[in-house]
Parts: sequence; C-alpha cells; structure tokens
Amino acid sequence: MNFPDRVVICEVGPRDGLQNEKVVLTVPQKVELIERSVEAGAKVIEIGSFVHPKAVPQMADTDEVARLMKRADGVEYRALVMNLRGLERAEAAGIRKAKFTVSASLSHSLSNHNKTPEQAVRDFADCAEYAAGHGIELSGAVSTAFGCPFEGRVPLDQVMNVIARFREIGVRELSLSDTTGMANPAQVFEYTVKVRKEFPDMTWVLHFHNTRGMGLANVVAGMAAGIDRYDACFAGLGGCPFAPGATGNIATEDLTHMCHEMGIRTGYDLDAVIAVGRTVQQFVGHDTVSFILKAGKCTDIIAANK
Amino acid sequence: MNFPDRVVICEVGPRDGLQNEKVVLTVPQKVELIERSVEAGAKVIEIGSFVHPKAVPQMADTDEVARLMKRADGVEYRALVMNLRGLERAEAAGIRKAKFTVSASLSHSLSNHNKTPEQAVRDFADCAEYAAGHGIELSGAVSTAFGCPFEGRVPLDQVMNVIARFREIGVRELSLSDTTGMANPAQVFEYTVKVRKEFPDMTWVLHFHNTRGMGLANVVAGMAAGIDRYDACFAGLGGCPFAPGATGNIATEDLTHMCHEMGIRTGYDLDAVIAVGRTVQQFVGHDTVSFILKAGKCTDIIAANK
Repeated sequence: MNFPDRVVICEVGPRDGLQNEKVVLTVPQKVELIERSVEAGAKVIEIGSFVHPKAVPQMADTDEVARLMKRADGVEYRALVMNLRGLERAEAAGIRKAKFTVSASLSHSLSNHNKTPEQAVRDFADCAEYAAGHGIELSGAVSTAFGCPFEGRVPLDQVMNVIARFREIGVRELSLSDTTGMANPAQVFEYTVKVRKEFPDMTWVLHFHNTRGMGLANVVAGMAAGIDRYDACFAGLGGCPFAPGATGNIATEDLTHMCHEMGIRTGYDLDAVIAVGRTVQQFVGHDTVSFILKAGKCTDIIAANK
Repeated sequence: MNFPDRVVICEVGPRDGLQNEKVVLTVPQKVELIERSVEAGAKVIEIGSFVHPKAVPQMADTDEVARLMKRADGVEYRALVMNLRGLERAEAAGIRKAKFTVSASLSHSLSNHNKTPEQAVRDFADCAEYAAGHGIELSGAVSTAFGCPFEGRVPLDQVMNVIARFREIGVRELSLSDTTGMANPAQVFEYTVKVRKEFPDMTWVLHFHNTRGMGLANVVAGMAAGIDRYDACFAGLGGCPFAPGATGNIATEDLTHMCHEMGIRTGYDLDAVIAVGRTVQQFVGHDTVSFILKAGKCTDIIAANK
C-alpha cells in the first residue's frame, strides 16, 4: 500500500456543510469561518453557491460573503453554480473557480433536474464557454458516483460516460462525490484506478460522506489508488436527504488528523482546524459527528498523562 | 489493493462492550445477546471475563452466563482470564478457549499491572501449561500495540518483543489491539505486514476502537495486508478510559455492512446483527455510535425509494 506524501484537503464546509443547517449563519460568521479555515491552511475552499435564493436560502448571501472575505494569495476560492446566471453572479463577486454538479444516476438526475446526466452536462456547455472566455477555472462534480438511493450501486460505465461528457465541454478537474454515503473501499479503489487510467489528463478529487462510517476508509482506498485531493467539511457538518439525522461529510479535523498520523502532509495546522470546528459547533448550535472534537488528537492524550 | 474473500468477525461485545457500561445487564440478557449473536452468524464470541468480581463487577456473573448459554457446534466461546484462578473458573464453566492480555507499552503495563510486558507474559506461563494439559486453547492479546496514552506511538520492536514472549509460552493466536484508538492505517499496514513475515506460524486478529474515527480505515489497511480476523462489538459499545465519552469498539453491524458492500463474506446475517444491535441499545438504555443503526444499510435506502 502506497500513500501520497501530501494531500490537498478542500474545505467544503461553507457550502456543503452550511447548506444543510436549519440555522442560517450571518455573513460575518461565514466570513470568519472562511478566513480562519484559510489561516488554518486551506488552499482550496468552497465558499458558497450561486443558486436561486429560494432554492437554497442558506446560500442566498454568497455574493456578499464573497465580496467581504479577505483573500489570501495562492488560495482557490471556489463556488457552486447551476447555470449561466449563477456563473455571472460568481464572476461579479470575484470568484475565479466555478463548480458544476451532475448526477451520474439517471433516476437521481431526472428526479432532481428533470434531465438525463448527459443533457445536464451539455446544458453546462454555455457556462464552460463563458468561463473559458472570462478566465474562470472550471471544476466538475459527479454526484452519486458510487451509489444512488434510487438505483443502488452506480455502474462504472455510467460514471465514465458522464466524465466523458464533462471532458467534451472542457472540464479537466472532476470530483467523484459519494453524496449519499454509499461508496465502499473496494469500489473506490476500483473506480479511481480505472478512471485515472481512462482519463489521464484529468485532476481528480474525491468527496465522501461518513453516512455509514466508511468515509475515512474510502479516503484510504482513494489514497492507495493515488488520489491526492479530498473534500472535507469543518466539524463534519452536512447530511443526506435520504438518511435523516445521519452523519454528514467527513470532518476536516478527522481527515487532517488521520493524514498527519499517517505521515502525510496536508499543509494544515491541526490545532487551528480544531479551533474552527469548535466555532462551527457554536455557530450552528449543536453537536456534530467529529471524532477529533470529541476524543482529541492522539498527541493530546499523551500530554495529559505524562 | 487485494482484500480477503472472507473475514471472521469476532463478537467481543459481551466482554469488551458490556464491561464499559454503567448498567450491569442481567444474566438472561447477556445469555440472550450471546445466543442471538451466534444465531446471527458469530463463529467466535468473547462471552465475558473470569477476573475478580470487585475488579470488574460487570463481569462478575460470567461463570453463570457460561453455564446457562446454549452452545452451537463450530462456535468458539472465548473468555478473558488474568491468572490460573480465572482459567480454572473458565474451565469449570465449560470454556475451551482462554485469552490473556498483555500491554506492549512499558508505562501502561507498569501502571496497570505493576510489571513489565515481558514479565506479564512470563507470568502467564503457568496458565499456558495448565491450558495445554487440559485441552484448553489459548489466545493472546497485545494491547496498546499501536499507541499508548503515556508513551505515544509504540515502536514495532517493542510489539515484536512481546509477541516473541507469547510465542515462547506456546501461544499461536494473537490479537494486536488498538485499545485507545490511536492506530492509523499506514501504521496498521506496516506493522501487520512485518509481524506476519516475522511470525509466519501465528494466527492474527486485529482489534480496533473507533475513538478517532479510523476504525474501519484500519480494518481496510489490515485486510490489504492479508489479515482476515477482526474483533468488533455489537452496537459499537466500549470505550477508552483516557478519552471519556469517546466512541468505542468498531460496531459489528458497521464492519459486517462494509464487508458485504465490498463483496467480502462474513457468514453473518446482517439484518440479524442489526436486530441484536438494537436490543443492545435497549438493554444499556442509551444511544451508541453505530452508523448502520442510525443510517440503515445501503440497500435499505434503495428499497425505501423504489
């Protein structure tokens, strides 16, 4: 088993975490979490989404957040967009990296967007063209890339097909997202080895939820397959609409801790990440499934008993 | 990454789970959990420990439990013993497999037993001799095999040394136990590859706690190294005295679910395992960290949405 020397942990909390919360954070709270995450070491951070305010009220103020947050050099501030209108809003707010999400599952795609996955990617072609003409970088996300609540396991061919469509519109960075926490390590290893081989010019990101406890195990499988970019969410916020009350994204502090224990560099200051996680719990007003926020680091324990 | 086709999941709940609970279950409750775990597919089950009743009051009735439980053919009913007196009690109760635990960490061993790890193993020599003379099988456990709350990471040499001492007294089955949830997947892979190579005639078991969220990730690393025996605990009971409130053992239902999703056979009926987990939660009277008891199986979700 070979692991990368270094991984990039993308902080998706301001978007994928906060959009699942009942409490809508204030703009200053969001700005604080973004700035402190970057100070803690985040080099990629998903700051929000430019979607219709009625669709996701938690993200309605993303324009303002983007304009107010201090920006650090060398950090990628990424936002989710759903269409050209959203991309124009993102650009107006100074966002230089946009992410489009398409579901690999036909049923899921039809149910959520009333279009096939292929059509959903093609409908982003105008956005891709606009982005290329305005120097905005693109990132794609294939959601339900491993399992779908309607269809069960999503066959690799279907995922490959969506990847190929993304490639056609010019996307060269893609995340495979286990939105509903159904991926398992054997499948992650198999799928990532094969997509890397089939699309060698693509940059890969893996996005796992810990719904069924396999989040970090899936990261280990992804790392063994050579993937070095992972999404994670402060304090482990996030959820799954099909499993109410279930655990959300893998927690940034849990993933950072595991990597450091494994001797894998992340660029994060783990104590600062933990401090962000505690603030997140205060802001949202409830406990979250974060192992490190509960148990502490391996090294904490040692100090306490010496 | 190669995984075994089949793994043996040893149910340690009746011992390692229940000994950490404030509520002491009744003998009929314990017998029910043991019998139902075996009906669900457990082929190895740790039914309790024969220690001084004052040391671990939760285990004081292990003799009675052992005498009352129905036994199935081909199932190993294992119990923890600390000395010859305990081994004699186990034998009198009809137990044919005894487990001895020794800590690999000098500080931990001195602190808990006032003797070095080497001395602790040597002190089991009389038990080993007795067992050999009475047809009782032996199992050893190296606790703090990966990390120690006092010493931090436990060097592999130290673990190897304890293993060698166990081998000298005739033990040929050993579990490496991450009692305090400090192991990480890179370390698990390294240690297990090396101990297997150094002691090829030993049967290995891995015992992980999910204290810092790495439990199933560590199993994946162990499986990639070829280990096919894992301890787990119904409903994820258990804990760590050094991290109060932290998550306990990996849950039997979570591990079984992951294995089945990976196409690895366990011999368990997952639905029956889940039913046992729910009963455990009722008996102990509180929620536990079990992902599958909360989120359901991957296949549940599909059925609910079809």
